[in-house]
Amino acid sequence: MITGQDDAMSPKITVELLRQLRQAMKNSKYITEPIQAYIVPSGDAHQSEYIAPCDRRREFICGFNGSAGTAIVTEQHAALWTDGRYFLQASQQMDNNWTLMKMGLKETPSQEDWLISVLPENSKVGVDPWIIAADQWKNMSKALSNAGHSLVAVKDNLIDAIWEDRPPRPSTKLITLGLKYAGLTWQDKVTALRGKMAERKISWFVVTALDEIAWLFNLRGSDIEYNPVFFAYAIIGISSIKLFVDSKRLLHPAVREHLELDSPSKSELTIQCFSYESVYTELQAVCVALAPKEKMWICDKASCALTQVIPKAHRSAIPYTPLCLAKAVKNPTEIQGMKMAHIKDAVALCELFAWLEKEIPKGKVTEISVADKAEELRSQQKDFVGLSFPTISSVGPNGAIIHYRPLPETNRTLSLNEVYLIDSGAQYLDGTTDVTRTVHFGTPSDYEKECFTYVLKGHIAVSAAVFPNGTKGHLLDSFARASLWDSGLDYLHGTGHGVGCFLNVHEGPCGISYKTFADEPLEAGMIVSDEPGYYEDGSFGIRLENVVLVIPAKTKYNYRNRGSLTFEPLTLVPIQLKMINTDLLTQKERDWVNDYHRKCRETVGAELERQARKVALDWLIQETQPIV
Amino acid sequence: MITGQDDAMSPKITVELLRQLRQAMKNSKYITEPIQAYIVPSGDAHQSEYIAPCDRRREFICGFNGSAGTAIVTEQHAALWTDGRYFLQASQQMDNNWTLMKMGLKETPSQEDWLISVLPENSKVGVDPWIIAADQWKNMSKALSNAGHSLVAVKDNLIDAIWEDRPPRPSTKLITLGLKYAGLTWQDKVTALRGKMAERKISWFVVTALDEIAWLFNLRGSDIEYNPVFFAYAIIGISSIKLFVDSKRLLHPAVREHLELDSPSKSELTIQCFSYESVYTELQAVCVALAPKEKMWICDKASCALTQVIPKAHRSAIPYTPLCLAKAVKNPTEIQGMKMAHIKDAVALCELFAWLEKEIPKGKVTEISVADKAEELRSQQKDFVGLSFPTISSVGPNGAIIHYRPLPETNRTLSLNEVYLIDSGAQYLDGTTDVTRTVHFGTPSDYEKECFTYVLKGHIAVSAAVFPNGTKGHLLDSFARASLWDSGLDYLHGTGHGVGCFLNVHEGPCGISYKTFADEPLEAGMIVSDEPGYYEDGSFGIRLENVVLVIPAKTKYNYRNRGSLTFEPLTLVPIQLKMINTDLLTQKERDWVNDYHRKCRETVGAELERQARKVALDWLIQETQPIV
Repeated sequence: MITGQDDAMSPKITVELLRQLRQAMKNSKYITEPIQAYIVPSGDAHQSEYIAPCDRRREFICGFNGSAGTAIVTEQHAALWTDGRYFLQASQQMDNNWTLMKMGLKETPSQEDWLISVLPENSKVGVDPWIIAADQWKNMSKALSNAGHSLVAVKDNLIDAIWEDRPPRPSTKLITLGLKYAGLTWQDKVTALRGKMAERKISWFVVTALDEIAWLFNLRGSDIEYNPVFFAYAIIGISSIKLFVDSKRLLHPAVREHLELDSPSKSELTIQCFSYESVYTELQAVCVALAPKEKMWICDKASCALTQVIPKAHRSAIPYTPLCLAKAVKNPTEIQGMKMAHIKDAVALCELFAWLEKEIPKGKVTEISVADKAEELRSQQKDFVGLSFPTISSVGPNGAIIHYRPLPETNRTLSLNEVYLIDSGAQYLDGTTDVTRTVHFGTPSDYEKECFTYVLKGHIAVSAAVFPNGTKGHLLDSFARASLWDSGLDYLHGTGHGVGCFLNVHEGPCGISYKTFADEPLEAGMIVSDEPGYYEDGSFGIRLENVVLVIPAKTKYNYRNRGSLTFEPLTLVPIQLKMINTDLLTQKERDWVNDYHRKCRETVGAELERQARKVALDWLIQETQPIV
Repeated sequence: MITGQDDAMSPKITVELLRQLRQAMKNSKYITEPIQAYIVPSGDAHQSEYIAPCDRRREFICGFNGSAGTAIVTEQHAALWTDGRYFLQASQQMDNNWTLMKMGLKETPSQEDWLISVLPENSKVGVDPWIIAADQWKNMSKALSNAGHSLVAVKDNLIDAIWEDRPPRPSTKLITLGLKYAGLTWQDKVTALRGKMAERKISWFVVTALDEIAWLFNLRGSDIEYNPVFFAYAIIGISSIKLFVDSKRLLHPAVREHLELDSPSKSELTIQCFSYESVYTELQAVCVALAPKEKMWICDKASCALTQVIPKAHRSAIPYTPLCLAKAVKNPTEIQGMKMAHIKDAVALCELFAWLEKEIPKGKVTEISVADKAEELRSQQKDFVGLSFPTISSVGPNGAIIHYRPLPETNRTLSLNEVYLIDSGAQYLDGTTDVTRTVHFGTPSDYEKECFTYVLKGHIAVSAAVFPNGTKGHLLDSFARASLWDSGLDYLHGTGHGVGCFLNVHEGPCGISYKTFADEPLEAGMIVSDEPGYYEDGSFGIRLENVVLVIPAKTKYNYRNRGSLTFEPLTLVPIQLKMINTDLLTQKERDWVNDYHRKCRETVGAELERQARKVALDWLIQETQPIV
């Protein structure tokens, strides 16, 4: 699934809210001196991609609910910055009190430049330091200072102050993951982390990303939809562990036992528990006690509030944490779990497609009903927890909207005449899935087949690529596009993202994209998606996505003993042969498709047999006939 | 030709020089307060890749003469930092007063860290501000300040102070290029530049790169070997032009007329001439007169000395200048000139290879004698000016040394038993060439052919690639490697660099490399090299290089009307068929080779015929037989 989200909606009326916010900007209850502008960033305090309802402050103030965007309110103006994915959606969701600032267009000013152009001299610009990243604070602060203004941290969030029915911060039940699922105990993970810290002479590490905390402690929650994480912070020292989480969550005996709260085996593995809110004061206390040369790691995307607690001389801000990297390289148990999760997921999808073939001619199957059916079928599988993201179920022209999500007002009926694209995935206790198939239930046009075949060739080019150890994913991105490029076609999104193991469906620090930031070298054990596409506005969308595992490759030679890597598909769902123009495939590509389908038939077939799903098994066999 | 250079040599004895330098570091004649360390950067005041003898200060002090490296001398220590290309060479050229700092190895400290570790408290570190780039100054200064030291600008260069027989700065005769060669008058270029400046509300532009000045004024010099440039600065205002160059050079009537020095046609196109040295004081004068909001462009790689003259509020430091970009996109006359230059160059190489086939069996042809013969043959061509870089002529194991340059002590004889690699090029009035061919005069082994064929497949994959307008070169780099990667092979250099038109053989801002810096999108009219390779240490080296022109591509579709690009080879020298294992080529690749050879035969054949070079023509016809 491509990063981002869409929603169609009518504009939110914000006159009264803006009036209240502007009052709060002058209210000495919240601030010592009036501020002339207030910035409302998009995120939560943990750099999360998906956020909990209580953190949707930017949506609350302006109505726009896409995944990326920053609102700024001054005494006279209100403006929202977002990128090309969301221009249409933002313009539909905001009333005319708001100016849409289209990022990426030449004429659009940056937030800094715009503020400088509209503010009176010596203005104060406020922001909640908990939801602005340290690096963003730095840039904004510098630009404003240069122009005679100042950026000030407003401790009380002014949106929260005017948000009457703001939902409480979730505090869902924690799930403990034993060795069977996690492969390593949290104690082993802490010990390995401390090894990395010692290597770099680091004595403390402030963990702020929710998926890193969940992974480290082998715990999961459901505080944020689709992402099995829970609100927490952790501060790991060379001989101490501080966990900051709502104390109610630690009352459950299974959790207490898992974390050895009542009978820690070793003193350096004793977890000290604190409330979620006390991370600030505890971090202050740790910092006060630091020896002169002690260094503390914190991610450079962590909140300004926490980052600034650490004195500069002790602070080592890093683009990726060692946990982010450790989590990305799956251990054998996680790999096995991911494989199992993908087989179960394939069972559900074989059922779904077999059902669709039967039901579509009746004319009552809609984008929404397929999404519901897919969820129902997945939920029948063992260890199912929930979806890993909102299902993209799209017919014909809706398929060309990359972040489409069916809503009652856009819902189309599946037919024998249009291309259907479904991008969906689930969380199981043993793994996370994410798969896209594009199919036609009637007869696709030659053009649709041609485009699909280019996308397939790109998918295969990445999946079958052999490349040296140490290669970064961005060096593979063009392989996915070469066939499209040859015909003058392309797609405007990256080719792949990291996938967590019963964790976030999007995770760093690896991926496959023409964008070169956030891109650590690929390593055996990493798991990424391979999902090229092609989108024809107003007609159809094509995307073909497998989740693939990075594995060592056997090569004829081995230059400088570097070793080589390639990919193994974990997703095992047939690729619709009807959509392929086999004349456009090379023999190697035909072999790849046949090998892939043989593997689908063998592996998923065995599971369908075990689950006695006869109709789906027949469908699988019919769909995995070799191309000749 | 790959960036960099090699030379084998015995160590330089530096005891006395270091003693003198350390004295100068305390001598109030040069400095107000003693300095505890002195940094000797590699470059000249113009960010040049090749430098004039008078600027080889780092070589003078330590003996190491590679293209990259920084020397630092303290009261106790002397150390040189260089990268992996030069570890061996530097260790051979320096005596044991010097410590070699191997950049890129984990254990090697940065210059800053090393200085901090060896300096007494509150030390002063000196550097000549003319030969350190502004961005490097900034980083170094910050790191030293944080540790309680300071970086100080030493106005008199201390190396020059102890360098008794330092050569004078060259001041060679200037060549004027008329419309026939340049395609645009310098007046038109200045006007276009001012258009770019006006677009960005820039009122001044300080030009420091020598090739940009040469290109802008349609002048060439020979101050630096291989690069037809001359020492100068320019300051371009919206209505004034200031040129800083040794006044003797402007005495020649042709130059005076070309620059309209005596009878300028328009006041805003009047060139004010100043001495080369007066750029500093003139820039100060311009800066003093700046209106409050006026902005001045300077490249962020320009010298610290000039950069710091411009007050921060007026300074706009840019990674590439508009001249760098304008120069990279060749105009129709330049393209025509480059094509002609490559045809003449091919004539010389056909002669060379025909001669080699006859001479090698006699056992007297060496790496050096081939290089000499190649130069002689090129010099027979019309408008020949000189070589564009030192010829890499390498037999067998010498071919595996990427920056090899034959010296008497390494010189090998060409034979029927070893692979021969020649990477060479020339400057003609109408264009610059750079071509590499790898050949065998006996029977290559299956393994040599296999490796050569992978390299050829990579070369073709880039040369025949079709990609959207706006694509950056780094996105094409993996195409050159895919075939090698499939077999576990690779090469450790970039795939291509920009090529000037009767200018520097290496120029920015485009290229094809896995490194993603210095990489502006490819545009029709840009010219780059396509030169994958494979190197087997101790046995042989393979590289296949054509200079290629970016041209619009015709595609079946045209997604979002972006248009597509591809490459047209300008180099037209046969690729030795004997080295190809044609079984490893696809039909498309075979067609590419045959088309390429047909073009070589037609275009170069016609010129050989015109020049009545019968032997070379016969050789060309024999070498361009189609593969079946």
